[in-house]
Amino acid sequence: MKTLASYLGDAWVSGDGKPALLVNPATEEVLAETTSTGLDLGRALTHARDVGGPALRALTFRERGELLEKMSRAIHAERDLLIDLAIANGGNTRSDAKFDLDGATATLMSYAALGKKLGDRQLLVDGEPADLAGSRLQGYHLLSPRHGVAVHIGAFNFPAWGWAEKAACALLSGMPVLTKPATATALLAHRTAEICVGAAILPPGAFSLLCGSAGDLLDHLCWKDVVAFTGGSATGLSIRKTERLLAQGVRVNVEADSLNSALLLPEAEDATVQAFVRDVARDMTQKTGQKCTAIRRVIVPEGLLDRVREALSEQLSTIKIGNPALDEVRMGPVATASQKRDVLAGLDQLRAQTRLVFGDAALPAPLGVPAGKGFFVPIALLEADDALAATAVHEHEVFGPVATLLPYDGSTDRALEIVRAGQGGLVASVYGDDRRQLADVVQGAAAWHGRLVVVDAKVADKSVAPGTVLPELVHGGPGRAGGGEELGGLRGMALYQQRTAIQGNGPLVAKIVGAS
Amino acid sequence: MKTLASYLGDAWVSGDGKPALLVNPATEEVLAETTSTGLDLGRALTHARDVGGPALRALTFRERGELLEKMSRAIHAERDLLIDLAIANGGNTRSDAKFDLDGATATLMSYAALGKKLGDRQLLVDGEPADLAGSRLQGYHLLSPRHGVAVHIGAFNFPAWGWAEKAACALLSGMPVLTKPATATALLAHRTAEICVGAAILPPGAFSLLCGSAGDLLDHLCWKDVVAFTGGSATGLSIRKTERLLAQGVRVNVEADSLNSALLLPEAEDATVQAFVRDVARDMTQKTGQKCTAIRRVIVPEGLLDRVREALSEQLSTIKIGNPALDEVRMGPVATASQKRDVLAGLDQLRAQTRLVFGDAALPAPLGVPAGKGFFVPIALLEADDALAATAVHEHEVFGPVATLLPYDGSTDRALEIVRAGQGGLVASVYGDDRRQLADVVQGAAAWHGRLVVVDAKVADKSVAPGTVLPELVHGGPGRAGGGEELGGLRGMALYQQRTAIQGNGPLVAKIVGAS
Repeated sequence: MKTLASYLGDAWVSGDGKPALLVNPATEEVLAETTSTGLDLGRALTHARDVGGPALRALTFRERGELLEKMSRAIHAERDLLIDLAIANGGNTRSDAKFDLDGATATLMSYAALGKKLGDRQLLVDGEPADLAGSRLQGYHLLSPRHGVAVHIGAFNFPAWGWAEKAACALLSGMPVLTKPATATALLAHRTAEICVGAAILPPGAFSLLCGSAGDLLDHLCWKDVVAFTGGSATGLSIRKTERLLAQGVRVNVEADSLNSALLLPEAEDATVQAFVRDVARDMTQKTGQKCTAIRRVIVPEGLLDRVREALSEQLSTIKIGNPALDEVRMGPVATASQKRDVLAGLDQLRAQTRLVFGDAALPAPLGVPAGKGFFVPIALLEADDALAATAVHEHEVFGPVATLLPYDGSTDRALEIVRAGQGGLVASVYGDDRRQLADVVQGAAAWHGRLVVVDAKVADKSVAPGTVLPELVHGGPGRAGGGEELGGLRGMALYQQRTAIQGNGPLVAKIVGAS
Repeated sequence: MKTLASYLGDAWVSGDGKPALLVNPATEEVLAETTSTGLDLGRALTHARDVGGPALRALTFRERGELLEKMSRAIHAERDLLIDLAIANGGNTRSDAKFDLDGATATLMSYAALGKKLGDRQLLVDGEPADLAGSRLQGYHLLSPRHGVAVHIGAFNFPAWGWAEKAACALLSGMPVLTKPATATALLAHRTAEICVGAAILPPGAFSLLCGSAGDLLDHLCWKDVVAFTGGSATGLSIRKTERLLAQGVRVNVEADSLNSALLLPEAEDATVQAFVRDVARDMTQKTGQKCTAIRRVIVPEGLLDRVREALSEQLSTIKIGNPALDEVRMGPVATASQKRDVLAGLDQLRAQTRLVFGDAALPAPLGVPAGKGFFVPIALLEADDALAATAVHEHEVFGPVATLLPYDGSTDRALEIVRAGQGGLVASVYGDDRRQLADVVQGAAAWHGRLVVVDAKVADKSVAPGTVLPELVHGGPGRAGGGEELGGLRGMALYQQRTAIQGNGPLVAKIVGAS
């Protein structure tokens, strides 16, 4: 059986404890095993800080960007093999796998382009200089890379994109990365990392991979390090509460649960309504609903409810569930047995306050799978009569192909009340063609979200679905979503940088910070 | 006796528990009392969120800026009376009192000017729009005020400036403020707040004042709120660890301890050396050394050590210690009995690894004070033979008129090693005239600090002392300093804003966010 090694201190190493098993979630066939028990994580972090940090800081943004471009190209060159791994270990359809892999390579390329744009310098100046008291005195703000390690703890749903997007921001900023993918789907993370290591793209110490449990990793961190976590809010909270991180004041970025909403406005044109239905159906079933940005709450004016329910049901009814290795399958299993249990339990919780309007109450009979095998869950479109009374819909994220129709009276105030009931989210989308009403929703919902997607008839056929994270725009959200912020071009580098005001003799300081 | 009431829910209210006493730290005369026991803090926060938030958000930046200008003018109009309060309750000399009060009014005016510049809009757009896939698709980043309360927990050393600088950022951002000054020196905070409330400048609900203990304040906060704390790192950590704040993901900004260093470079010109000595002497004694930005570590090339020690001792020897109500007194007591205990204990700790080169080992005999009264501490200039071996100097902040001379061999590497031993600080200053060496220090120390001050001969006579916080430049620092960031113009408003990516039909989104 394949054993996934970790890459620590510029060497492939394996632990010696009882290994965790990685399986094919459609067939439950065991694919690989891994363990981190006994690995010296403190030493690995010290190596990254002492060797990788100086090497990266010595490079210019242009040079760091070139590394990202090489990583992107190296991964893309093995795309077909990687798709097969994603299908086998992730329960991904071919389309799901491409979404993850192309997300990874596109994000690396986006930051590669940013590196080129930032050019031949090692430090950035933030904003314009400020004139201070005194004729010669000026203040600049310098952005310099933190001298620690960027520790990235990833979620199981995007084993390629997840680590690549975080690594792109950290590496371009000049910080070495230690990435710890979720164990269950680590095959793809491991292989993409192995490709980059094998191609010897990054300088020594700049990249580490930890497969298996995080062990005592966090207890070795210091204030210079950064932790960026994506996953469930319970794990996010336990990371935040880690005594060592609090005592050292380690920067922690959390991207957690989110009850993302899609809101249809009453005067939406036909094309807009169609885009709404298309996006909801896609978000429900893409990656078997295992996207932190997937639409969970479908807010529809009463007058359009029948039409939307019918159109959605029709689209969902075409989705064939089964072994994603089969071409005709449009939705695979969820990633793990425990995810399946959670989805089914969550579905029960939602159903206590809603009714099923599309889907099978029973488990589906998946195509191309040995009887009784695989972590399959049903597609479920639920509906609540009273949007706010169905409290579980606004509080409990069911991480699977599940969404709930929430009718409203067509007023912006009521719609905003329902949207806001999620208490902070990653993304919300609004579909409509009345500019005034769109503006009211955007301005009223902004403080609750990290991203808002506006779809009107003019872009209905070309808009990017709300579930797709774009490197140019920030990703993360307040409240339930964890309060973090990643990506967004330069903004995503702030986590890895220290902003320092430099004051003094204006022309002298300008030379020192490289602003003149 | 005067009782300091709290201003909560737009009313002056007093608690009913055992009051805390506010005294004159020079004479120990009791000046006032206050208690918050029994006050309904949850209701006060709800009032601020529900009444103050909408009122502030309805204003434009220009209008909010006008409020800040009125606050500044109202406080300034009572400057003379306020100076007397600061002398009586803060142990401030007249000069210390002006520093605090003028810092408050200048910071309010600086943000008032920023409001005017931001103009007639309620929301800000961050950066340029990003072109997304598709010809019409663009993404903007909107900055909108969070819908909670900005809770400000202040330190005892700057009862006016401390709350004003935090309030300026929050109010201009559109968030209501609840400020809780340190009890011991709350007389000035209370009176400055009372002036603003009395002048009915702010809309209802926009401002609250909590005098006395914070009680269960933090347990009523939610993810929409913000906590900004300035004070000791132990209290900072206990705030950070508060279960409710962690569970809700409340934004917490901490500005805590800092072993600020001033570094003299070997080829400094005479004017530069003089500025160095002047700034160290001022920082040691201004506010009796009770500034979070005061120089604690004085890093001097061996070749200049005798000269610096002599010049510093001479300047320090002119400082008369006593009751700051007397005109000839240049340094008052520390603020409280417990601060005095801490300073003396800390001094013992430092002296175990250093020697006293200027100052009296015994307590001073202060001028104009009843025998045995007052929280007076001696000025102490210490010196270590081996800069890094004196570990306490780099780890323990003695919050009084105490600094340590740390010799080095003149090499930039060694100097940086000593500077960095503070493990993150608010500010460091470097004095020299060799551009290359200045650049090396700035670039090498930046990631350890929130602010760096460069002093060369050309600005030696006009530079702003490193201990002075400027509204145009960020204040805060990584590591030991708490990892926070405040002020810095627009940057200081980020804590109170949610950044939200808005994507869609470019021209439409531009109109919605007000960018066209």
